[in-house]
Amino acid sequence: MKKYDNLVMNAVGRLVPTEVNGQLMIPFMGSGKYKPTGKMAAPPIPTTADYPLDGNKLVDSLAEALHKCGLKDGMTISTHHHMRDGDLVSNMIFDIAHEMGIKNLVWFPSASFPCNEPLIKYLEDGTINRIEGSMNGPLGRFTSRGGMKGTAVLRAHGCRHQAVQDGEVHIDIAVMAAPTADPFGNANGLYGKSACGGLGFGIADTHYADKTIVVTDNLIPFPCAPMQIEGNFVDYVVKVDSIGIREKIVSGTTQITKSPDRLRLAEMTTEFCLEAGLIRDGFSFQAGAGGTSLSIGVFIHEILKKNGWKARFAVGGANKYLDDMLYDGTLDYILDGQTFDLDAVRSMREDANHIAVSAFSSYNYHAKGNHSTMLDLVILGATEVDLNFNANVVTHSDGLLLHGIGGWQSAIQGKTTILPIPLFRDRIPVIRDEVTTLCGPGEFIDVIVTERGIAINPLRTDLMEKMKNSPLPIKTLQELKEESERICGKPEKPNFSDEIVAVIKWVDGTVIDVVRKVAP
Amino acid sequence: MKKYDNLVMNAVGRLVPTEVNGQLMIPFMGSGKYKPTGKMAAPPIPTTADYPLDGNKLVDSLAEALHKCGLKDGMTISTHHHMRDGDLVSNMIFDIAHEMGIKNLVWFPSASFPCNEPLIKYLEDGTINRIEGSMNGPLGRFTSRGGMKGTAVLRAHGCRHQAVQDGEVHIDIAVMAAPTADPFGNANGLYGKSACGGLGFGIADTHYADKTIVVTDNLIPFPCAPMQIEGNFVDYVVKVDSIGIREKIVSGTTQITKSPDRLRLAEMTTEFCLEAGLIRDGFSFQAGAGGTSLSIGVFIHEILKKNGWKARFAVGGANKYLDDMLYDGTLDYILDGQTFDLDAVRSMREDANHIAVSAFSSYNYHAKGNHSTMLDLVILGATEVDLNFNANVVTHSDGLLLHGIGGWQSAIQGKTTILPIPLFRDRIPVIRDEVTTLCGPGEFIDVIVTERGIAINPLRTDLMEKMKNSPLPIKTLQELKEESERICGKPEKPNFSDEIVAVIKWVDGTVIDVVRKVAP
Repeated sequence: MKKYDNLVMNAVGRLVPTEVNGQLMIPFMGSGKYKPTGKMAAPPIPTTADYPLDGNKLVDSLAEALHKCGLKDGMTISTHHHMRDGDLVSNMIFDIAHEMGIKNLVWFPSASFPCNEPLIKYLEDGTINRIEGSMNGPLGRFTSRGGMKGTAVLRAHGCRHQAVQDGEVHIDIAVMAAPTADPFGNANGLYGKSACGGLGFGIADTHYADKTIVVTDNLIPFPCAPMQIEGNFVDYVVKVDSIGIREKIVSGTTQITKSPDRLRLAEMTTEFCLEAGLIRDGFSFQAGAGGTSLSIGVFIHEILKKNGWKARFAVGGANKYLDDMLYDGTLDYILDGQTFDLDAVRSMREDANHIAVSAFSSYNYHAKGNHSTMLDLVILGATEVDLNFNANVVTHSDGLLLHGIGGWQSAIQGKTTILPIPLFRDRIPVIRDEVTTLCGPGEFIDVIVTERGIAINPLRTDLMEKMKNSPLPIKTLQELKEESERICGKPEKPNFSDEIVAVIKWVDGTVIDVVRKVAP
Repeated sequence: MKKYDNLVMNAVGRLVPTEVNGQLMIPFMGSGKYKPTGKMAAPPIPTTADYPLDGNKLVDSLAEALHKCGLKDGMTISTHHHMRDGDLVSNMIFDIAHEMGIKNLVWFPSASFPCNEPLIKYLEDGTINRIEGSMNGPLGRFTSRGGMKGTAVLRAHGCRHQAVQDGEVHIDIAVMAAPTADPFGNANGLYGKSACGGLGFGIADTHYADKTIVVTDNLIPFPCAPMQIEGNFVDYVVKVDSIGIREKIVSGTTQITKSPDRLRLAEMTTEFCLEAGLIRDGFSFQAGAGGTSLSIGVFIHEILKKNGWKARFAVGGANKYLDDMLYDGTLDYILDGQTFDLDAVRSMREDANHIAVSAFSSYNYHAKGNHSTMLDLVILGATEVDLNFNANVVTHSDGLLLHGIGGWQSAIQGKTTILPIPLFRDRIPVIRDEVTTLCGPGEFIDVIVTERGIAINPLRTDLMEKMKNSPLPIKTLQELKEESERICGKPEKPNFSDEIVAVIKWVDGTVIDVVRKVAP
């Protein structure tokens, strides 16, 4: 966390620094405008001659493995977040680093959760300089209050892959929690007491890190198949008692909403989609993991059944609702980046059409295309939306950084993106003059559905035309904003200081916004 | 083809050039001695902004795709050989290049077959400068006769991956025949009229080539799953009538032998393995695709059944014999680099324990280990063996280059490698003072089984000890050689000129031997 004096205005009007944590940053230039010219990262060439010929890479402890990997001050340590809020491995790493007296580490998780709150002490004592990765809950709050020594860097899942692939983030040591693994380092998330489904968020790490450690609580003889992580990328394997708390590996976010207001939102969104012809035979969709989005998924399922239609593919966050569709034949394929419940874990294990994909395939913007732009319909959430349809997913209106970006920035690149959001939360209006943090430019947000009206992005003249005689309450964002302010009053601005505590990357690696320190 | 004056003697006593086709070469230094110090190849960073957002990369013809890829003189064009002798795509590429007046191309197939004989005219007229890849049959003969303008470079499957990964071979355009594909470029070999099983030999190509074209005769809607080739690496997709001749895609090599001599060899080998304790519960094996090796596989199967044993994994070349083991539970996993018959294609499609692996996982020496060194028992063929247990798999004793290396050089790195070979072929002794071409150093060959006796490599004191009271005819290679020469006479040496027509790489990318022009 520091004051930056090298700020420039980017293409969405946000002041962003041109250098962060000693690294040059490119300000967001507009969608598709920044064209990379360089080459990808080139890992050092290993040789089988340096590895045990019997394939046994077991060492006695994670401490020994980290020591053998040459853990030292200033290194970047990566982890994946497939253990979610049940993760036990990330905290182990930094306990060991602290024990060894190591300082100034960069933690590069694909996301962090409340379970990682114990790491605050290492951010305070300098064991960890900063987190580059999404922060859900306490670590985000700590960062917002200015507690982190370095500046946090938040990237969506695809952007994280891009940063590793393009060499912007060099991983010194990747530590991969693995629900099942063999002594060679092949691993998957399908079996074992800590089964979590796919391990896709860790794949880039193993391809590009100098050293990779697999940590498992279910060691089986070679070959561990499927090889979601390939042992040929792995240096050491460690067996521990437990890598995760089973009931917390399954995320609490994957329940359909029981709130009547949210159900109304879900119904309105579904009606809108149906009237606009967005749900049809052969279409594809992604629905977020929130209760409202899940309910919409359930409604979509019913519509498909009723009409004898079939969705071609759904991008997950996979859960039992998508499973049900796969099993009754209303869905051909689940492309699953992250498996949210045990039903989905089972389905990935048993059904070849439930496919584990990496952030590379689904979301990486620096590839020859990715899956996100092929999605017909995307239903996601947001903490705020502004009058230009720009949206925020990381901070609340009080300025506190409390959520990760997830796959959101990539998913909104689908053909039609709809954000069903309540008009206000805790009497704070959600539609603002300007979003507190700009995570997604308005050009990617097509429709905002609130319980009191639906706003269509004027760029979508086709949808405007289709819905002009709709019985649904089509309004402008301005109208919706005025309505919410009539009820709740004009919201207060957050009490920010000048200090920048985090930067928010766009899918192409440029900086789209910053998060400033919130004064107490 | 040219005379080289920059020859040095390598660690196995062969004179090899230090520069070939304008590229520096490292002479073989002994197993595990050459340690790479550089970094891997770094492909240019693409951006989704340059690719169609709807994921549709279809172009009208292969000619158009090659034109769009900027095909020009001197480029390196890669193909995989999963269509085997039924391949129709490779010849198309060079017909088009010839039509466009392009010269001096390098063809970099993972192997070539008799079906590629029509390319000889392009080697003659300069459309193709050289082939870097295995040559089975006519192209090898043509090369041996000095017909190729450049010098051929032969690499085993893993070495081919290594060369691409390490940047020794830069692929300008990869053209991937795909039995099933979608418009985004996802592809697999499991479905369609040209189904061939896995596409593992093409995976490195798509990861590292500047441009990748997928050519299919079975185009399906996105997503084509499983994504053996990932569309995120693909530039263009072309639909053609046929990519292969179905009955030739299934290799003719995968039949068990009917020859009584070869069956005797197979029986002796199996008896040896059993007595030496090499076949046991939980062991792993790889048997080559030749008739003798296949028969041994069948005998192994019977032994496992009889004893109630189970093999943990077999590395394929997969075929119906391995399938049978998977189905009756005498084998846990097939790790399949190349699928030899339609039974195996079906099994890969239906059985999750029949796993498609790439040359990276199974064989790449410049990785953090690979599968080959974990194999307990490896049964392969050879064209010649010398008194130091060195073996040849590419040339015949008349000097003609007629076979590819396949995975042989990697597979022999298993714990025990046995070569069952006839003492003579067409009255030409197979055991020589020196092999015509040295493909594998004797330290990796543990046992030679012939119909008249079995020779154990003196390095394997453990096997010598175990077998010292065996009723099997254990002899020395010298004894076996003398025996064959008593019957057939001392063999003539091939009539080589000085000119080097091909170099043979070792798994680590160094040069282990050369092939010289055979005088007419």
